[in-house]
Amino acid sequence: MAPKEAYAELIKQTKEISTLGACQAVLEWDHQVNMPPGGAAMRAEQTSLLAGMIHEKFIDPKIGDLLSAVEDSDLVADTDSIEAANVREIRHSYDKETKLPKALVEEFNKTTALAHNEWAVARRENDFKKFEPWLVKIIDLAQRMAEAYGYEGEPYNALMDNYEPGATVAEVADVFEKVRIELVDLLGKINSSSVKPDVSIVERPYDVEKQKLFGEMIAMAMGYDFNEGRLDIATHPFTTDFGPGDTRITTRYNPKRLNDALFGTVHEAGHALYEMGIDKKTHFGTPVGESASLGIHESQSRMWENMVGRSQPFWRYFFPVAQRIFRDSLNGIAFDDFYAAINTVAPSYIRVEADEVTYNLHIMLRFEMERAMMQGDIKPADVPAAWNEKFKKYFGLNVENDANGCMQDVHWSAGLFGYFPTYALGNIYAAQFFAQAQKDLPDLDAQLEAGNMLALREWLRENIHRHGQRFRAKKLCERVTGAPLSHKPMMDYMNKKFGAIYKF
Amino acid sequence: MAPKEAYAELIKQTKEISTLGACQAVLEWDHQVNMPPGGAAMRAEQTSLLAGMIHEKFIDPKIGDLLSAVEDSDLVADTDSIEAANVREIRHSYDKETKLPKALVEEFNKTTALAHNEWAVARRENDFKKFEPWLVKIIDLAQRMAEAYGYEGEPYNALMDNYEPGATVAEVADVFEKVRIELVDLLGKINSSSVKPDVSIVERPYDVEKQKLFGEMIAMAMGYDFNEGRLDIATHPFTTDFGPGDTRITTRYNPKRLNDALFGTVHEAGHALYEMGIDKKTHFGTPVGESASLGIHESQSRMWENMVGRSQPFWRYFFPVAQRIFRDSLNGIAFDDFYAAINTVAPSYIRVEADEVTYNLHIMLRFEMERAMMQGDIKPADVPAAWNEKFKKYFGLNVENDANGCMQDVHWSAGLFGYFPTYALGNIYAAQFFAQAQKDLPDLDAQLEAGNMLALREWLRENIHRHGQRFRAKKLCERVTGAPLSHKPMMDYMNKKFGAIYKF
Repeated sequence: MAPKEAYAELIKQTKEISTLGACQAVLEWDHQVNMPPGGAAMRAEQTSLLAGMIHEKFIDPKIGDLLSAVEDSDLVADTDSIEAANVREIRHSYDKETKLPKALVEEFNKTTALAHNEWAVARRENDFKKFEPWLVKIIDLAQRMAEAYGYEGEPYNALMDNYEPGATVAEVADVFEKVRIELVDLLGKINSSSVKPDVSIVERPYDVEKQKLFGEMIAMAMGYDFNEGRLDIATHPFTTDFGPGDTRITTRYNPKRLNDALFGTVHEAGHALYEMGIDKKTHFGTPVGESASLGIHESQSRMWENMVGRSQPFWRYFFPVAQRIFRDSLNGIAFDDFYAAINTVAPSYIRVEADEVTYNLHIMLRFEMERAMMQGDIKPADVPAAWNEKFKKYFGLNVENDANGCMQDVHWSAGLFGYFPTYALGNIYAAQFFAQAQKDLPDLDAQLEAGNMLALREWLRENIHRHGQRFRAKKLCERVTGAPLSHKPMMDYMNKKFGAIYKF
Repeated sequence: MAPKEAYAELIKQTKEISTLGACQAVLEWDHQVNMPPGGAAMRAEQTSLLAGMIHEKFIDPKIGDLLSAVEDSDLVADTDSIEAANVREIRHSYDKETKLPKALVEEFNKTTALAHNEWAVARRENDFKKFEPWLVKIIDLAQRMAEAYGYEGEPYNALMDNYEPGATVAEVADVFEKVRIELVDLLGKINSSSVKPDVSIVERPYDVEKQKLFGEMIAMAMGYDFNEGRLDIATHPFTTDFGPGDTRITTRYNPKRLNDALFGTVHEAGHALYEMGIDKKTHFGTPVGESASLGIHESQSRMWENMVGRSQPFWRYFFPVAQRIFRDSLNGIAFDDFYAAINTVAPSYIRVEADEVTYNLHIMLRFEMERAMMQGDIKPADVPAAWNEKFKKYFGLNVENDANGCMQDVHWSAGLFGYFPTYALGNIYAAQFFAQAQKDLPDLDAQLEAGNMLALREWLRENIHRHGQRFRAKKLCERVTGAPLSHKPMMDYMNKKFGAIYKF
């Protein structure tokens, strides 16, 4: 088949697979948002049928033949072209999917399905010994998968690549190490500061209906279009996308705390703006119609959540609005006190409740643990001790029980080794992108103070969103900021922001 | 292949097709209930991809081979057995699906997709001439489909059979004719009565949140289990089912009228109880795990809506509750006045707004029109005149414009010839079933007066629901009531009920 025809057929197949994936995403959204409990068993059958069909279509040798017919042709000679990017990424996924033996995939799916329940019980009972044999199995499976994928350097490279294509452990570890050292130092200064923000300001009754209204108002101001989306409630908030024109966000409301839904909504709207900014009308269903990586995705949500949503300029505009809406709780509160309250830093055991500073330390710790587990340097039985030692070192806290320590996250029971680092990569990318946006948009602060976030959204769309997966994360970062990923922009941002709040 | 193995494989295939159908139902529910406008184009691609996959799987010659391997075997010797019913109905659908040439199906889909918009415009502009050429095309297509299916007697038989398997025009026409004559007579008496119910009682402000609460309360009392369902808002209310454990209903609220959502919810909950009463845990995905026919389905919704939900015993229990909930609107209203208000009969132009008595006349008229159109006895150009003449005769009203006359329904633009009669069949079956239930449950009225509807639900489950499509409608009716479908139970019920209300 001629390269052009092969490419067209490849794209047709890929779009069909993605359309089935979108169907699955609708079922998953419904599962999380609407489904009555009775529907769970049947829903599992529906999604596993679709997953099986998608997998079958994707590992069809026809896909491999089509790829071979295009690769090395003139059509992909320009490696920055859309065609080249699509072929590169389809090949990447095809090779990974087809390299895994069917028996291994089945064992992995079966083991992680069982392990999830075992983990939940072990965590509830704070009994690591119960979870340990499952961790042994899953680490073994993850190692076998890494071997099947193949890798340079260490096996963790093969796993992290599933979430952050092209990222290497060596590079990530280097940046993380610098971040960790500076963050521990920053945290020490914050802990010794005499400034103690009054968090009770945001921990008092906030009417849920009003929280929803306020969240929607902010999402709209960010440029989130409710004609092409919805905001619903979910226990574990997420953003999902069913193709062009339908990108939905979720949040959860705490009637006695403002932060959860407020910053949760901004975070998810950040993810959604990325999806909405990709040119899906043209590229839906192909890699160029998808996000560059989980790290880049997280950079969008975290930039909006923290660098915009927890900034002074943002609240210069929205604090008076919030005071009007939540009169009973915010009447008479000073701007600086509110700003400090939403930016309180306090080391704590649970990652998902962590503040902006300590969140990254949680990730660094997990990254180091995972990497060592994959290398066999930390044995499953030694996980609690290793965890607790690192935790003491980075946070200054003694872990009292494993349920709030090494068993707190679902990821390991689900076999998601290599996923955690994307959370911190997101923060680091976010700071580097945001520093560039501030250079390119000199009046950005003034705009935010006027409640105008659309110039930033346009900057992100132009520089990041619209490219989809055309460039891998590393290259995208160099294109946008003129430099490789560095810990500096984030640490500059953190030191400046928290130095001002905590006065050091 | 041995019959037993062939049957097992046939059921496996059928279940997989049905599971895909359930995925499609989730997408469709989301479309009607949640989807932002921007999602429409992509959703159409998703559902048409799934529809295509379902169709391909269903017309696979493998299905025909499996059927042939089972048919005439001992496995289906007992024609009342579950195996025989499944094989009978899979064969019925397989033959119908495979008899239609692909080109005809494609022309039908394309034409009706376009016709829908043309019809909407023509109706809005009250310009039948605009719709006429589309009606010409669709009638031609429907006739060609009937020829492709094959039929005894007249082509309409082949079409009606799609919705009411096994029903014949001759039998339906006979019952309908008797109903129509008696209904016109009954309507005359009602029109001449000096009793004029005060409908303003139900046409005043009714708080929507309270309507929702009241509707949910009644649905729960009927036995609708919210652990296996939800009640949402939809512009065109419907019930849907995603397999065992998830059967959802929808309604729409009019803040100034009680009836719409109240009886709409009871109607849809009636449909849902049928779906929930089928033994889907065992039979999901096979004909025995599905409803017997649209007519039987409608018998369940209409029985609950009218024979229960608009009855005196029901309101003996729920009227005091309603008075408590809707204090401002129902305070001081007499029971008899409320009962008369929710049972007001008044001929009007629009089918979907019709009362219990005139609703059937709307259907009779459409049935006669459709049948004559399929026979070529009424040409498309003559549809308005023929419609208006019949309307005058049955309703005593002059149709002033076609938008409120022959163009009011979506069905013809969608090519759904043969669908309408199932609405009236539903009412007639409902009355015959309900009369039997009253015989079998002598204290039914007393139970309803005590707010207890579960004995009736159990009777329906035992006699009707649990059989699914094991028996066709006609046979089911004979098994349940010991007699073939007759106009008598419904006319007895109508004459008694409305004679009492209108005092003749």
